[in-house]
Amino acid sequence: MHVMVLGAAGMIGRKLVAAIVAGGLDATALTLVDVVAPDAPAGFAGRLRCLALDLGEDGVAERLVGLRPDLILHLAAVVSGEAERDFDKGYRANLDGTRALFEAIRRVGGYCPRVVFASSIVVFGAPFPQRVGDTQLVAPMTSYGTQKAVSELLLEDYSRRGMLDGVALRLPTICIRPGAPNKAASGFFSNILREPLLGRPAVLPVGDGLRHWFASPRAAVGFFLHAARMDTGDLGHRRAVTLPGVSATVGEMVEALRDVAGNDAVALIRREPDEAIAAIVAGWPGDFEATRARALGFRAEADFAEIIRVFIEDDLPAAEH
Amino acid sequence: MHVMVLGAAGMIGRKLVAAIVAGGLDATALTLVDVVAPDAPAGFAGRLRCLALDLGEDGVAERLVGLRPDLILHLAAVVSGEAERDFDKGYRANLDGTRALFEAIRRVGGYCPRVVFASSIVVFGAPFPQRVGDTQLVAPMTSYGTQKAVSELLLEDYSRRGMLDGVALRLPTICIRPGAPNKAASGFFSNILREPLLGRPAVLPVGDGLRHWFASPRAAVGFFLHAARMDTGDLGHRRAVTLPGVSATVGEMVEALRDVAGNDAVALIRREPDEAIAAIVAGWPGDFEATRARALGFRAEADFAEIIRVFIEDDLPAAEH
Repeated sequence: MHVMVLGAAGMIGRKLVAAIVAGGLDATALTLVDVVAPDAPAGFAGRLRCLALDLGEDGVAERLVGLRPDLILHLAAVVSGEAERDFDKGYRANLDGTRALFEAIRRVGGYCPRVVFASSIVVFGAPFPQRVGDTQLVAPMTSYGTQKAVSELLLEDYSRRGMLDGVALRLPTICIRPGAPNKAASGFFSNILREPLLGRPAVLPVGDGLRHWFASPRAAVGFFLHAARMDTGDLGHRRAVTLPGVSATVGEMVEALRDVAGNDAVALIRREPDEAIAAIVAGWPGDFEATRARALGFRAEADFAEIIRVFIEDDLPAAEH
Repeated sequence: MHVMVLGAAGMIGRKLVAAIVAGGLDATALTLVDVVAPDAPAGFAGRLRCLALDLGEDGVAERLVGLRPDLILHLAAVVSGEAERDFDKGYRANLDGTRALFEAIRRVGGYCPRVVFASSIVVFGAPFPQRVGDTQLVAPMTSYGTQKAVSELLLEDYSRRGMLDGVALRLPTICIRPGAPNKAASGFFSNILREPLLGRPAVLPVGDGLRHWFASPRAAVGFFLHAARMDTGDLGHRRAVTLPGVSATVGEMVEALRDVAGNDAVALIRREPDEAIAAIVAGWPGDFEATRARALGFRAEADFAEIIRVFIEDDLPAAEH
């Protein structure tokens, strides 16, 4: 099988490629694409291409589809904050790029690859019930969320018409992100765990009661691999799946850190309430049922302590070197 | 106020223009646009333009926005059946045309016209609860429904960012349509009433138990006029409104016809079950709460007899001549 990964140089993309090469998919050819050339993974015996291409640019989708991948894992995106700041850039990358991909596939005719698309719980918007169900109204409150919601609708129409075989994955907030602290509004969720685990201080800008919805990078990779292999006939025509995760308050996250790493780690968290961040995250959902996704075989962590252990196993050794 | 009507030559468009000219809006200039030049309405004293233009063609949106209407009533669309048959034409007219309009407005900068967009209950898809609520999942089952749903999402994002002041109207099935019987899957709803009222036979292809959701052309005009005048601050960021209507079974429609026009009219209805049509309409919703729209001041008919009386008052005289 020829597998193409769009957004292969990103955090999830790199882990996904590593998992594919380790045997997560039966890949005989691998085409890795990102706006910067993705690194060649070690140990892949099949045909490998690493391409620096921007899906939002004219002709790129046609060129990629011309390689006839059997499976396209589409994680390429301009992130939320940037899509909100730069309207044109966000729509070009996140909507036009995705639509160009679908159109290029359609225009081949008789070619119907599996397309797994990275969507997000940001397609939803407040007000939320205490637990968000599988028939929650899609009502994005950002341009990024709008671009993801529109892409889901297109994926469903193209799939219904047999032009491609799509699955859209509404990812939870991915936590604990390895690497340097980032300044995204959601960055503190990872920062307050990763930095103390590395013996460094971190700032907590919100109250302990804030509840949100998480999965580890490892779980995210698992979602893509499962979507690549699943029987899409089970989806009916609702091709967008709200994925399982762990619902936890900030207070519960801190206590999970204490259980795993002790009081000294927790003492590195400095509380500095930030009204601006508190206002943004107050509009975020706290808990999902994800009944349908679990029935379809998607699996996330059981609790937040497991999310921390996954980081320690997968990312802490590299971070310490 | 300069009012622009896109799709002004259509059935609702013509009635809407007549209502505006009769004083429904305080219009000092009127620009009427359709793919064929709309007729000039009688009795309009202000500046009038009648333009044959296709919004889906390059440059048309910019040209129209260059006229700086204060209010844009956007009813232009390729209809459902055609959008399903001709994928490119449907997407070009219904998605690209609408997006081009929004983009042309945005690129002016500091110009924020009210835009009232004709959406439809076809943004929803089965399975349905007995009564569809205001937070029903958008899940279109046609390309037309997808194009309307995507346009709603764009309208909400552009509105949230202050680029335009949008309202999307999810219209019920409009009944009784004047004019010749049409072959749309939904055409029989109007045919079985209009034709007997005109002393002509009609075919009923479905069972009496089928329930669906209706409003008259007069109610549709009222929805647009109300959306043009309302305080959009009341909408919050959910700019798409599921409109009120009348829920009726085919049997109830036939009995309403009997009450208004007698047994002789009903005797003109010939039952010829059509499996293909029955299969299509079985996936349609039967009843809506429309609580939010009613609270926002949108009004439809009280019962199906009123829908028939509206046709007799507004359209039967012309049809008989």
